[in-house]
Amino acid sequence: MIRIDGKQIIGFDASAAGSEKLFSRKAATGELLAHQFFKATESEVNAACEKAATAFQVFRKKSGIEKAVFLEAIATELVALGSELITVCCLETALPEVRIEAERNRTVNQLLMFAGLLREGSWVDARIETGDASRNPLPKPDIRYMHVGLGPVVVFGASNFPLAFSVAGGDTAAAFAAGCPVIVKAHSAHPTTGEFVGKAIRRAAEKTHMPDGVFSMLHGEGTVTGMQLVRHVHVKSVAITGSFTAGKALFDAACRRDVPIPVYAEMGSTNPVFILPEALRINKETIAKGFAASVTLGVGQFCTNPGLLLYEESNESEAFTQLLKREFEHTSGGPMLTAGILGAYEKGTARYAVHEGIQVLACGKQSTTENCAHPVLFRTTAEVFAGHQELSEEIFGPASMVIETASKDEILSVASGLSGHLTATVHGTERDLASYRDLLDILEQKVGRIVINGFPTGVEVCHAMVHGGPYPSTTDGRSTSVGTASIFRFTRAVCYQNMPSALLPAELQNENPLNIWRLINGLQTKERVL
Amino acid sequence: MIRIDGKQIIGFDASAAGSEKLFSRKAATGELLAHQFFKATESEVNAACEKAATAFQVFRKKSGIEKAVFLEAIATELVALGSELITVCCLETALPEVRIEAERNRTVNQLLMFAGLLREGSWVDARIETGDASRNPLPKPDIRYMHVGLGPVVVFGASNFPLAFSVAGGDTAAAFAAGCPVIVKAHSAHPTTGEFVGKAIRRAAEKTHMPDGVFSMLHGEGTVTGMQLVRHVHVKSVAITGSFTAGKALFDAACRRDVPIPVYAEMGSTNPVFILPEALRINKETIAKGFAASVTLGVGQFCTNPGLLLYEESNESEAFTQLLKREFEHTSGGPMLTAGILGAYEKGTARYAVHEGIQVLACGKQSTTENCAHPVLFRTTAEVFAGHQELSEEIFGPASMVIETASKDEILSVASGLSGHLTATVHGTERDLASYRDLLDILEQKVGRIVINGFPTGVEVCHAMVHGGPYPSTTDGRSTSVGTASIFRFTRAVCYQNMPSALLPAELQNENPLNIWRLINGLQTKERVL
Repeated sequence: MIRIDGKQIIGFDASAAGSEKLFSRKAATGELLAHQFFKATESEVNAACEKAATAFQVFRKKSGIEKAVFLEAIATELVALGSELITVCCLETALPEVRIEAERNRTVNQLLMFAGLLREGSWVDARIETGDASRNPLPKPDIRYMHVGLGPVVVFGASNFPLAFSVAGGDTAAAFAAGCPVIVKAHSAHPTTGEFVGKAIRRAAEKTHMPDGVFSMLHGEGTVTGMQLVRHVHVKSVAITGSFTAGKALFDAACRRDVPIPVYAEMGSTNPVFILPEALRINKETIAKGFAASVTLGVGQFCTNPGLLLYEESNESEAFTQLLKREFEHTSGGPMLTAGILGAYEKGTARYAVHEGIQVLACGKQSTTENCAHPVLFRTTAEVFAGHQELSEEIFGPASMVIETASKDEILSVASGLSGHLTATVHGTERDLASYRDLLDILEQKVGRIVINGFPTGVEVCHAMVHGGPYPSTTDGRSTSVGTASIFRFTRAVCYQNMPSALLPAELQNENPLNIWRLINGLQTKERVL
Repeated sequence: MIRIDGKQIIGFDASAAGSEKLFSRKAATGELLAHQFFKATESEVNAACEKAATAFQVFRKKSGIEKAVFLEAIATELVALGSELITVCCLETALPEVRIEAERNRTVNQLLMFAGLLREGSWVDARIETGDASRNPLPKPDIRYMHVGLGPVVVFGASNFPLAFSVAGGDTAAAFAAGCPVIVKAHSAHPTTGEFVGKAIRRAAEKTHMPDGVFSMLHGEGTVTGMQLVRHVHVKSVAITGSFTAGKALFDAACRRDVPIPVYAEMGSTNPVFILPEALRINKETIAKGFAASVTLGVGQFCTNPGLLLYEESNESEAFTQLLKREFEHTSGGPMLTAGILGAYEKGTARYAVHEGIQVLACGKQSTTENCAHPVLFRTTAEVFAGHQELSEEIFGPASMVIETASKDEILSVASGLSGHLTATVHGTERDLASYRDLLDILEQKVGRIVINGFPTGVEVCHAMVHGGPYPSTTDGRSTSVGTASIFRFTRAVCYQNMPSALLPAELQNENPLNIWRLINGLQTKERVL
């Protein structure tokens, strides 16, 4: 049995200087669980930041291999938590065991993916221009370039991914890989899970001889503890997966600091799905079934949950709508992550239900228990949608909206009017896709990921993923929060002019001791510098 | 003789809808030159932005080769302007002919460098993960990733690089290479030069069949026309080389937009130079001579001008100080770019001259003409420097400050207290450098470029350059404004999931028709996808 003390993790120390507390709850019922957690005081915030700044001086000099060993040790410690972690996480989130087990595996795989990136080593984008003393009119200096870590990163745990985007999640793994200490503001909806995982990271840090302060974890309110962290002079970057309100508030605070810092807020979106005519005719049933499942998967609690479905009116479209209605009526809801999230979902769907331009097309099966979100599929017209900005806002949960348009032009017009989203999905045959290149062109400018003949839920963790998109789906549309490219959120390039080879980082030394890919005088190579 | 009409360039059209004007002046004397320029009206600003947004839809689909041809055509048109461009540019900036000719060559080379980057094609960072339908528990999708342009970019011409960082300068070249239309806010200190170059770009765009609106150029005040541009809904990014005041104002405005956008302001810095003990003993004369030359090169009007020199008190240091004093007394000033810049320089140096903790160590030769900046070398202590934040601010021009410290610890303490700078320079023998690793470690966190045994003026345009640095030297310490990596200021990644190969951009198609480097399932290769 793992002991829970409810304290802040400040480097290798535990601290409980405050008197205010927050409480762990069973998500499905709201009942209090046994554990209590101290909220961090401002001096605890300062202590964590000071330790992180000091730790950065040591951690930034660790080799890729040493950082990989640390990430691998975190993965090992996570696995070692066994079923106790799964049980408490299920209790605190109301997510089913099979999902939490899969998420634990994903979290472990993310850590190992970054460990692999570090062991291979080429991610630093090493660039070398060799000098030429004889060049006219001026000698050419020797210049060598690579990415280095920005400094301490504050990570906010996400409610909807209590493992994969929380304490040891993707943001934390990417920041560690970049060479940055991490301070996590634990999510108050799963503090026990947070402490389990936070202590696993601390054990991994101790076992692999990482500096005290490479990791801290604090409990508290986002508006208090979170803001203190974002405003702290030692903090160099912020990552959060959360609501628009939370992400935007952190972004604004970060821009207004004496020294502004980047905030990578992944704030979700409605992830439009388009069904093109031939696909609609041929794949009616698969699409209807797949869409209903995607909307209600995990009680709709995914950033990539599809909140908007568009297709053109045709001979076949009514039949599709009826199929969709039927499929949706077979879906079930379930308890949501927190009472607050359920409340917001109910408020959002109730607002739509009474909107004069919106019909309820279908509802999922009524739940037998209380505290459950009830799936609902709305329907409106392109005209109403275009005239009501508020209909573009995400309702977090198992709700979606169908728009049957009068024409292809109306499809294009809705697409053009979209703001930034994480994903857009298009169902189409090869013929459909070829004749809707204009739609694909528009979508490419609106989203980070275009999904063909699939559904946006399910984000592959790999080198090629973009889980990001133009504002307001994120606060930094140049970034991804999933996949190996997410490491660049926490780095900047530095270059060395005429530095003796022996004093350079190993990545840039003549001999290429790490055997990494480098751009030498414009050519990609693993050769040494001659 | 090239005709000057003083109008806005709005795509392929000229426009002069306004009534307010600005005037070209001879920089050395302030006297009015023949030409007058209309300030852009707000509807002209809107017209340029609308055209840019429309042009983006065509320009973003141009192949790398087509964009390269455009950049090469701009280079050709610039060269074709011949001596007339050089003459007018010298008049408007008071910079000598040899410098402006070198700068024109640099500008041409920058355009050709980006053309080369586009012709080679691998810059898009293509990443491919091939699908695996048999993977358990879920099939692996095919995901393909690459960088694409952000959309219209506003570029502010810099006063101190009237060609290389103005209308057809590095920012413009990088934005075009990224696939982004450019709207230049011409610098009002060299409007005739601006019109020459702007029309050259327009001719190149017409000749190479680029879309109307791929380039526009407007005259006006930064606080009016500039702000209208930065706030325009169609503008997706901003680049400026300028003062802290200008850059910060644009950054703040961009953060406060309904849809915030990135601002890449390169705002200069004092670029500290450190001389380590053995190098000081051995290379006294070279360093003293080199430093005095670097401070006063081009009347000190470089972002990388060294405004701070530090070395430890020793048996040799007084001799070095005397040498430096003598070298500095041989330097000359000259006319500055504008009366405003000269005024700010005189105000800045006058403030130092009466500061009780500061001595004047040496002055350059008195100029015979008026309107000339007079080089001046100040001296203070580490203690005074640490106690007066205002001494860290850049005085733009041929001034610098010497600090002789009592110890190595004091050197490290000054280094630790530095804010972000573009560069830091260290003079040291191999032995010096090895025993000052702690200094190099600190500097790596403070600057974008570390220069060993050289001087920071002179920025090599190449793949490996970082001309950027932590705030306040720039508003985005993750970026460089010189070199090929500067293209990533104007891009974001997008990924395609299960897109048929034929519909993908050429960069991501199975056959690798562009023969570029790609990361396929984690391996760097030029092979096709099997």
